[in-house]
Amino acid sequence: MTELLNREIHLTSRPDGMPVPENFALVAATLTPEPSDIVVQNLYMSVDPAMRPALSNGQTPLDTAMPGGAIGKVLQSESESFPVGAYVMHRSGFREYHVSDGSDLALITPEDEALTTHLHILGGTGLTAYGGLLVTGELKDGENVFVSAAAGAVGSVACQIAKIRNCRVAGSCGSDAKVDYLLNELGIDYAFNYKTSSISKELHRGLPDGIDVYFENVGGAHLDAACGQMRPLGRIPVCGMISAYNNKGARSEGVTTLSNMIYNRVTMKGFVVYEFNHLRDQFLADMRQWMREGRMKYQETVMEGIENAPAALIGLLHGENTGKMLVRLADG
Amino acid sequence: MTELLNREIHLTSRPDGMPVPENFALVAATLTPEPSDIVVQNLYMSVDPAMRPALSNGQTPLDTAMPGGAIGKVLQSESESFPVGAYVMHRSGFREYHVSDGSDLALITPEDEALTTHLHILGGTGLTAYGGLLVTGELKDGENVFVSAAAGAVGSVACQIAKIRNCRVAGSCGSDAKVDYLLNELGIDYAFNYKTSSISKELHRGLPDGIDVYFENVGGAHLDAACGQMRPLGRIPVCGMISAYNNKGARSEGVTTLSNMIYNRVTMKGFVVYEFNHLRDQFLADMRQWMREGRMKYQETVMEGIENAPAALIGLLHGENTGKMLVRLADG
Repeated sequence: MTELLNREIHLTSRPDGMPVPENFALVAATLTPEPSDIVVQNLYMSVDPAMRPALSNGQTPLDTAMPGGAIGKVLQSESESFPVGAYVMHRSGFREYHVSDGSDLALITPEDEALTTHLHILGGTGLTAYGGLLVTGELKDGENVFVSAAAGAVGSVACQIAKIRNCRVAGSCGSDAKVDYLLNELGIDYAFNYKTSSISKELHRGLPDGIDVYFENVGGAHLDAACGQMRPLGRIPVCGMISAYNNKGARSEGVTTLSNMIYNRVTMKGFVVYEFNHLRDQFLADMRQWMREGRMKYQETVMEGIENAPAALIGLLHGENTGKMLVRLADG
Repeated sequence: MTELLNREIHLTSRPDGMPVPENFALVAATLTPEPSDIVVQNLYMSVDPAMRPALSNGQTPLDTAMPGGAIGKVLQSESESFPVGAYVMHRSGFREYHVSDGSDLALITPEDEALTTHLHILGGTGLTAYGGLLVTGELKDGENVFVSAAAGAVGSVACQIAKIRNCRVAGSCGSDAKVDYLLNELGIDYAFNYKTSSISKELHRGLPDGIDVYFENVGGAHLDAACGQMRPLGRIPVCGMISAYNNKGARSEGVTTLSNMIYNRVTMKGFVVYEFNHLRDQFLADMRQWMREGRMKYQETVMEGIENAPAALIGLLHGENTGKMLVRLADG
């Protein structure tokens, strides 16, 4: 293969508070792959809340193509594992082409599901909800469950798994349209717009017996309200704290109700998705079955073109997505 | 036995903020025990931080003798289990005599230790530190440990167990005299007076590699500083949050650093001492051996007379004790 023009998104300065377009640049680079290289054309890339702290804490390097989950199609390859035309997943998003020796690629073999589902409900996003709720959260049938950011990619999977396990589920979200989606599409028991209501009062209404499991995505005022209403031996699996990500030092609003953790012997535990890698086969089998049965739905917010990747990330942090935020880079 | 004059402490109104003497009354009652009753003369009673939330949340009833741990001597008994002259432990402190059918009594058989140790390091206080650190906190040899309220009854035992397990130990306390006690009597590695320093800076100095286990007694600003410095897979066993107890609704100062629980996969867990009852034999054997070896020391702050029990509780909440706060009711 001769030269390839590769458009990439670079982080050019570290955001102080909410990221702005000026923190990013679209840069054109020229690739000249060797015949032994595997060349992947990226089709879709993932935009995730966890990208935000990495922009500030030094994990995302400056002035080079940013990392991020992506699905691509193999354009050139001498590898039997990743033949031309195969779909692969990798961590080199935020660019149109990825050149690899194969060591960072995972083959994707879609069954009857859409390719993009492997970037969310059948990928790390789904496994985060599955493991966080069932393993870290030790969910039991029929419990009272609160999910914050319930209309987000992880939250919406957590809500549906809890419903499948016959739980009573309340969810918070940031718009009335999302409330409608949660109640009428996902079928949870109670939903509220935290921007226009008291979280504490809504939780008392939605889960009057208290909370057994709070699947934590937001932190700050959400945790302050939920922690005070945890039931005996309640669990708080901490998936994320998006309310803290845009503050200096990743600080959330103050949480004042933690003493309830003593009285009710509550456990709060941070987790990351790679703890659940050993569950991936069972996870995929469960999720595909639930999808076929119509009990596991999803929604995507798709922005078009590599040039819109920064806007997609900024939009995510403003809550503009329902379900998974994706960027489409090329036709599959 | 004919009539007994029993002086008791009653809670007469629920404190709003820090308790004051006017919330309590010394009441004289007349007891006329039956011949079949076991009559116990209380010798020492325990004063504990956990009594504070019970004053406000309704657990401690109004206008009757308050509950609380005590050690007494049997004055009258037909029971073979609790003969006259035996020492017993029970939950009916805050009064000079306790009349029982035996079902709420536990026999104490001191070896070479002082009787009062069964109200602290060999009793629930010690078991709280032992179980909270070793079971809930999953302490491993050589870890970095922070103990708040380190000169208190539970904290001082936690510090010494961590030293016995070859840990590096930092402790916070509320006076320079307590700093001296922690460093020079208990032999911990670093101690500071939180009232005259920055908790966060002191922790950076005392535990420069971060914290593996934070034994939490205080909450609020202590937790805010410690949580931000937790190491990967750190544990925060939550024994108490004394900073919250005198605020309405048991609210602490806001904790803003909880997002570090995600990045470092930290677990925070509330516990109560009865979870560790099955460990009591091993606990007593370990503690007695450590005491004989001079590796487990204690200090008592003893106030005299039932009439001073409210002052002892109020003093405890003001941090006036070093080690265990006790009230002596009669000569053994």
